[in-house]
Amino acid sequence: MRNVEKYSRGYFMPPVKSLKWTEKEYIEQAPTWCSVDLRDGNQALIVPMSLEEKLEYFQLLLEVGFKEIEVGFPAASETEYTFLRTLIEQDLIPEDVTIQVLTQSREHIIKKTFESLQGVNKAVVHLYNSTSVPQREQVFKKTEEEIIDIAVTGAKLVKKYAAETEGNFQFQYSPESFTGTEMEFALEICNSVLDVWQPTAGNKVIINLPATVSMSMPHVYASQIEYMSDHLNYRDHVILSLHPHNDRGTGVADAELGMLAGAQRVEGTLFGNGERTGNVDIVTLALNMYSHGVNPKLNFENIYHILAKYEKLTRMKVHERHPYGGELVFTAFSGSHQDAIAKGMKWREDRENEYWTVPYLLIDPKDIGRQYEGDIIRINSQSGKGGIGYVLMQNYGLDLPMEMRESFGYSVKDISDRLHKELMPNEIYEIFLKEYVNINSPVEFINYKYTQNENYETRVSIKLNNVGQEFTSVGKGRLDAISNGLRAKLGINFKDLVYKEHALEIGSESNAVSYVGFAAADGRVYWGCGIDADIMTSSIKALFSAVNKMISCPNKTVEEGFSLLNK
Amino acid sequence: MRNVEKYSRGYFMPPVKSLKWTEKEYIEQAPTWCSVDLRDGNQALIVPMSLEEKLEYFQLLLEVGFKEIEVGFPAASETEYTFLRTLIEQDLIPEDVTIQVLTQSREHIIKKTFESLQGVNKAVVHLYNSTSVPQREQVFKKTEEEIIDIAVTGAKLVKKYAAETEGNFQFQYSPESFTGTEMEFALEICNSVLDVWQPTAGNKVIINLPATVSMSMPHVYASQIEYMSDHLNYRDHVILSLHPHNDRGTGVADAELGMLAGAQRVEGTLFGNGERTGNVDIVTLALNMYSHGVNPKLNFENIYHILAKYEKLTRMKVHERHPYGGELVFTAFSGSHQDAIAKGMKWREDRENEYWTVPYLLIDPKDIGRQYEGDIIRINSQSGKGGIGYVLMQNYGLDLPMEMRESFGYSVKDISDRLHKELMPNEIYEIFLKEYVNINSPVEFINYKYTQNENYETRVSIKLNNVGQEFTSVGKGRLDAISNGLRAKLGINFKDLVYKEHALEIGSESNAVSYVGFAAADGRVYWGCGIDADIMTSSIKALFSAVNKMISCPNKTVEEGFSLLNK
Repeated sequence: MRNVEKYSRGYFMPPVKSLKWTEKEYIEQAPTWCSVDLRDGNQALIVPMSLEEKLEYFQLLLEVGFKEIEVGFPAASETEYTFLRTLIEQDLIPEDVTIQVLTQSREHIIKKTFESLQGVNKAVVHLYNSTSVPQREQVFKKTEEEIIDIAVTGAKLVKKYAAETEGNFQFQYSPESFTGTEMEFALEICNSVLDVWQPTAGNKVIINLPATVSMSMPHVYASQIEYMSDHLNYRDHVILSLHPHNDRGTGVADAELGMLAGAQRVEGTLFGNGERTGNVDIVTLALNMYSHGVNPKLNFENIYHILAKYEKLTRMKVHERHPYGGELVFTAFSGSHQDAIAKGMKWREDRENEYWTVPYLLIDPKDIGRQYEGDIIRINSQSGKGGIGYVLMQNYGLDLPMEMRESFGYSVKDISDRLHKELMPNEIYEIFLKEYVNINSPVEFINYKYTQNENYETRVSIKLNNVGQEFTSVGKGRLDAISNGLRAKLGINFKDLVYKEHALEIGSESNAVSYVGFAAADGRVYWGCGIDADIMTSSIKALFSAVNKMISCPNKTVEEGFSLLNK
Repeated sequence: MRNVEKYSRGYFMPPVKSLKWTEKEYIEQAPTWCSVDLRDGNQALIVPMSLEEKLEYFQLLLEVGFKEIEVGFPAASETEYTFLRTLIEQDLIPEDVTIQVLTQSREHIIKKTFESLQGVNKAVVHLYNSTSVPQREQVFKKTEEEIIDIAVTGAKLVKKYAAETEGNFQFQYSPESFTGTEMEFALEICNSVLDVWQPTAGNKVIINLPATVSMSMPHVYASQIEYMSDHLNYRDHVILSLHPHNDRGTGVADAELGMLAGAQRVEGTLFGNGERTGNVDIVTLALNMYSHGVNPKLNFENIYHILAKYEKLTRMKVHERHPYGGELVFTAFSGSHQDAIAKGMKWREDRENEYWTVPYLLIDPKDIGRQYEGDIIRINSQSGKGGIGYVLMQNYGLDLPMEMRESFGYSVKDISDRLHKELMPNEIYEIFLKEYVNINSPVEFINYKYTQNENYETRVSIKLNNVGQEFTSVGKGRLDAISNGLRAKLGINFKDLVYKEHALEIGSESNAVSYVGFAAADGRVYWGCGIDADIMTSSIKALFSAVNKMISCPNKTVEEGFSLLNK
């Protein structure tokens, strides 16, 4: 390639390498995880999240089990200020969770940061300034002494405002662009900040070493981290933290080797969202540890739920080959792989208490709520859920929600097993139509009228076992009103309604298709699909389909369904 | 997480670690690259490539500069057999390129493999068998001796059939599932195979060590590779090769550290396609070396071209955050990042012969045919080509080809600069309509008739500067015929026609939209878009739009355009 002479290595080796980290073989203990999804992740989205979306994402992070969550840069953005105030004022931060806020080293920003924190129980105040050679020379045009002065002045101000503000504050300092900084200078600036903050056993300071841009091979980063870990003052009272990015495709390796080299804390995001190539992916880091028999202290047992929320709120897709979460990563297309997996599964069934050693599968997909997808069904050269989803999408324009694909996959597998044959796309489609679309028995939707006021008062005509009936109800919208009415009218219960809708392009007329899924009282999930020229009607038909599937389910625990049929 | 006790580490440490690899800091020389796109990559596609697609992909690999290309498993698949025969019989393999074929260690398969190679100039015959503990115990149910016997028997057969077949053959052996194999056993089986093949300086043997499933941290893999490199017999006549997969998200790191540890060759794919989480991504590996000032000996100077071909042929998308190739990886959304980049660019302009050190950008995007996309345009919180593409897609259902977005990005930037304002989505859309859609001056399309025979004889009515004219022409299809006719009629020239079409869903009527781009005689690329109720007409209108843009271009080098206007 041309222009190669334009490049050199922009990082710096530590003056001494101890290489103690190479003696360790794996990570024996989970680090402290800090999610930066709502800050670094959010700022890199084409359409950043709204306040409501941030609140929903915050809940997702709590569900996953994060105990430290960076929530933004409240002094720099009105949205982030409002978000932080909402968390504090609506008391949405659990007792055992610490939020973190970012601030530049400028007095009016530090002042406003502490104002935004008024009333917080506990927070990490994260101070940073840029320390790399290019940033010093090109952007700030300052000497090393002047750059240290920025950090020290900021540290003093943070300490001063913290003392004047109610709440418990922990301090964090990042020499931003650490990977482009001379190691001796990075050490000097961190130690200067530590001298101001005077960490103690009871109030440790976090020193965070960002690979703002990943510039070196992973073992070089590890040696840099080890140098810092070995030479920082107050080391027992310092929590050493990493913040890797993925410019070289080695974010995971950087974090892993960095932990061996002494880091106790990792900042990253779900599925590696973040500026440019993204932050390090915490899902992969955690499940890599899990695959080694180490509890990561985060919960990814229902990865579809996390994926669905993530994709909805960030409007980013997780790639099909993304470790653990990608749609194709538990699929073996090769016959010899499928055969070995089948034999490995059988071998495992025949024994007890053995470690997981099934060939080609790093972990048991069931442990994260997935399943091995190579042998469910093969449609020509297509296998499993991925294949089924693809067939319905390519041939019939139906883009099922991910969790519905899984549920539908089981139906197809049952039928495929029973018929002892591979299914062709049109057969898959027929099964889908028959099992999920516009199901109108025993409860048939006839029509509805509504008043568009605050309550969406709605009158609905239905037929129940072919007898016409009516009910009225209210809700936050038409679908909500009808769903409330159905619950009351039929004496049934369901919750956690999932809803998706899209235009149906393939076929002669332009139609709308909607999907509805919900959890019944017994915890089972039911899905329905509605197709209609009218969007609203398609969503109502989807709801009725799911309700009919629930009450017709031959599962005796759905007692509501059976009591209803006797009415 | 539950079930963590079910896991342990399934890999094996080498009996001795020398750790010489840690003394090296970066990769100083490009390895031999072997593309396995057409084998490992292809077999992991939901819809594997057709023969024609494989031939096109093979050309792409040649353009990138691969000198070793694994083309399949000819004895196991009719398609792969036909593909190989086509390459040989149509003489499509350049003198300096070696193809590679995979074979199991079974006589009828080895025999058929050599039959498929009849007449080849030069090929690597790649023999493998599974060696890991789970494969031996669960799948093959054989002792270590029996597993070695499979390899040795296969090696003898490969040697025998090679001697009987015309052509130059190099041998490769893979202890498949190497990462789950005891290192001493992996060494023993490789040395046993080497004893059969007796490598020499003139005919080296490739020993390939696959991370079939990546199971350990990257430095452990490096220590495994170093142990093998240090202890293999005939080492001077052995080419040590890696074949990493990405199960732990560390495929790139595994390959990089493995190279430091002694590997001289890497098998991988473009953008990391391959079974499950994929093979190691050679684009990232190569450009990582490039960023360190080392020539990777592969050419990614026009990454959009490679991306477009890759996505078309594999039907996989490259993720927005994929290093180097992803749509968002040269975009900075954060204001402070944008500012630092601008200052860094300015600083660089003011100096000469300096190394690339612009903050936040690992390499100069121009060097791979891209550009920094943070400051072209901001639409609310959206920036650059990504933002423009998003706006046109979300609001108006227009899914422009990637290269067209870039071209359109410049138009928008020009206008935005001139107006000194940020542009709203409707303004972007208006610009697009005005600049690209159904442009009918000076050459207006009226209608056409055609005969559907072998030549698609087509008669086209146009108006040229408002004067009705007609021409007839032939081609491989209607669009081709019309495009040939236009060239002849107008005395103009263009080539490398890019074509994309989709249904237009947003808006009141269902329409088809087509995009056409081509390179004019002066090398400049022109784009046009056609929208019409009829798909074919939309594509013709797109062609006319592009032609009109070309001949109306105020660039004096488009002389054809100006000569035409004087007709």
